[in-house]
Amino acid sequence: MRTSLFTDHYELTMLQAALESGAAHRPSVFEAFARRLPEGRRYGVVGGTGRLLEGLVDFHFDEEQLRFLSDHRVVNAQTIKYLENYRFSGNISGYAEGELYFPNSPLLTVESTFAEACVIETYLLSVMNHDSAIASAASRMIASAGDRPCIEMGSRRTHEESAVAAARAAMIAGFTSTSNLEAGARYGLKTVGTSAHSFTLLHDSERAAFEAQVASLGKDTILLVDTYDVENGVRTAVEVAGPELGGVRLDSGDLVQQAGWVRQLLDDLGNWNTKITVTSDLDEYAIAALASAPVDAYGVGTALVTGSGHPTASMVYKLVARQDDAGSWIPVAKAAANKASVGGRKHAVRQLNDRDRAVAEIVSTTEHTSGGPERALVVPLVVNGEIDMSYTGAAGVHKATERHRASTQELPGIARKLQRGEPVIPTIMIQD
Amino acid sequence: MRTSLFTDHYELTMLQAALESGAAHRPSVFEAFARRLPEGRRYGVVGGTGRLLEGLVDFHFDEEQLRFLSDHRVVNAQTIKYLENYRFSGNISGYAEGELYFPNSPLLTVESTFAEACVIETYLLSVMNHDSAIASAASRMIASAGDRPCIEMGSRRTHEESAVAAARAAMIAGFTSTSNLEAGARYGLKTVGTSAHSFTLLHDSERAAFEAQVASLGKDTILLVDTYDVENGVRTAVEVAGPELGGVRLDSGDLVQQAGWVRQLLDDLGNWNTKITVTSDLDEYAIAALASAPVDAYGVGTALVTGSGHPTASMVYKLVARQDDAGSWIPVAKAAANKASVGGRKHAVRQLNDRDRAVAEIVSTTEHTSGGPERALVVPLVVNGEIDMSYTGAAGVHKATERHRASTQELPGIARKLQRGEPVIPTIMIQD
Repeated sequence: MRTSLFTDHYELTMLQAALESGAAHRPSVFEAFARRLPEGRRYGVVGGTGRLLEGLVDFHFDEEQLRFLSDHRVVNAQTIKYLENYRFSGNISGYAEGELYFPNSPLLTVESTFAEACVIETYLLSVMNHDSAIASAASRMIASAGDRPCIEMGSRRTHEESAVAAARAAMIAGFTSTSNLEAGARYGLKTVGTSAHSFTLLHDSERAAFEAQVASLGKDTILLVDTYDVENGVRTAVEVAGPELGGVRLDSGDLVQQAGWVRQLLDDLGNWNTKITVTSDLDEYAIAALASAPVDAYGVGTALVTGSGHPTASMVYKLVARQDDAGSWIPVAKAAANKASVGGRKHAVRQLNDRDRAVAEIVSTTEHTSGGPERALVVPLVVNGEIDMSYTGAAGVHKATERHRASTQELPGIARKLQRGEPVIPTIMIQD
Repeated sequence: MRTSLFTDHYELTMLQAALESGAAHRPSVFEAFARRLPEGRRYGVVGGTGRLLEGLVDFHFDEEQLRFLSDHRVVNAQTIKYLENYRFSGNISGYAEGELYFPNSPLLTVESTFAEACVIETYLLSVMNHDSAIASAASRMIASAGDRPCIEMGSRRTHEESAVAAARAAMIAGFTSTSNLEAGARYGLKTVGTSAHSFTLLHDSERAAFEAQVASLGKDTILLVDTYDVENGVRTAVEVAGPELGGVRLDSGDLVQQAGWVRQLLDDLGNWNTKITVTSDLDEYAIAALASAPVDAYGVGTALVTGSGHPTASMVYKLVARQDDAGSWIPVAKAAANKASVGGRKHAVRQLNDRDRAVAEIVSTTEHTSGGPERALVVPLVVNGEIDMSYTGAAGVHKATERHRASTQELPGIARKLQRGEPVIPTIMIQD
């Protein structure tokens, strides 16, 4: 599967015009960053880096694609000729996947000719904007859930390929498993699932359905008990599976109240080890509201895959510096109106206090050290076109999960607050 | 590309348990519907049907997928054996793509064994929920834009594959073109684009950039004039391209006010035929606010691809009827709590008044005619496993676009109101 046409038309017309003007070959620096976090969020989580690198491997133009571009006169013959040999041969460095970010953190820095960097813009932003939105939402859910496991089950509420990426992003932020089989197959993620209401309705009675499920999946399965009447459902489940019943799932109603009496009922019936999973339209707020209820696991769907109100991370990709014909670097930035940004290549470190807690994001146009404790944020991802594959595949997900865990532990406790507020640490922009 | 693992784990464990209990082969009817529209929306637009049918062609399990399911003990050997030969061989009928829908409209009806219908659940919902959310948002934007063209340019703000589906859904709802090249290649959609701020910043001056663009793309190109100063940008654009300049693009600032004086300036300079395209974070409300401004085209990005606040259509897929062992049809429905639904296979017609305007959605458990004017809503999509390919590919998009146009013309004018309100026609559920 080629990834090269996941690209806006204008990237290629710019390429054409720049090839003609000669400026296409100017060494350039692009940066991807977010001007702001979604309103009220305390931090963002970088998602998608591994997928981006995987897709970059396949980012070249095959014959059929070139024929499309030529037949539809998207670009001229000279540009087609350039694209025939297109491979990204420059450098990309950036925040590792799973790392936290703040407004104006330089998330990815792309150094190459203008031509090479321009062509990958749309694809790079698509991957990062989607996956970071999901990872950021997932991280808040994990913070709300405390020690209780969160299961990703939102596939049906988003595009089938987004679902795979969302499952991956959720795991990076700390979800323990996903319902998505394709994500399991591609990234070695743990997949789980037992049954839906249709399975109960298919059988002649709830008891017959439970018997069928237990016979096939074992007594440690999770039975869905709210198809008809929850109390009867729980009693039947226990009668069928006995004290070894793995769990019951509640998918409707007032979950806080229901979890309370279902737990009591299970205990009264001797099913002390039977767990309660809840799954009805949960988001980080509903999870927080269930903290005091005797719930053992959360299944999260819609809110996860739609970024809990913020389905895109709104990252942009801006030319910040380029050489002139004399080979001097010129910092550049849009000046007009409400989208002004800071020109020049940025560096970034996270400043820490003496207890290794984050206190500020230092972004600077020349390399800068605070003198005190700080942590480097930027890692090389692509060097002279050579992609660091350690960030891709199952190993990449594992690495990103570790990065997320370490970086969130470094945040002050207030970062876990769900209330709207300012970013938990300030971004200090130092321009020299 | 196989589509069969875009599936929740539990679909296959249910299959396994039902194969063992014998219920897997019971003839069954599943329906996809939305319990409600997104809050305040007047109607929904069915999107994704064509993509669903395209994906169904590839919905079978290859060796590698079966090995994954087997190695990871997702299901047992008997189930693997069943999946080896899996092909959907039943019937699917439903609302044509582009059709409008209301709460409880039976959007898709799937008739087959439980086993066959269960396995496609997640994939069917993913496609329909995503594409319908985008088509529904796009339709409101088109209603706001009136006769002015809307251009889809949101690819960078959503997953790369969602972007292709979003471009397709936008075109169905009446967008005239998209920036997404992959969507152009797959579905024969018109793609457009000229340049971004980076192109201006790459060159030694705005003038040099405009000269390069005009030299390469022609005088009828659209120049982006807000990199430095909009007035200077417009003057330079006109000096470079002359009276034949195709258009200018405004991407920041107060667009209503700016469009006014930019139009005046263009006219004063003699550029009466130079058009104004605006593109900064537009949604249906911003488009409506620009109605009185001298704008010629709208470029819509983030709001389109994220469903303008509602990124999923929240459709569900429910078993509504199944046979018992005696071969009698049993209507079934979940009873508990806040998710109760009506059992039994549904039929649907749109009731019209004598001026052919829609007045009600009649949904009934037996075929029902109002006696007055009405329009059938349901078409066959798959018959005994045979997929009607006329709904797929470029031809399918064209057909859906026509359907959307005809169906929206049938709505009362109030449907185009942006204010929150009730669905524009009521759904009347008739249970026999």
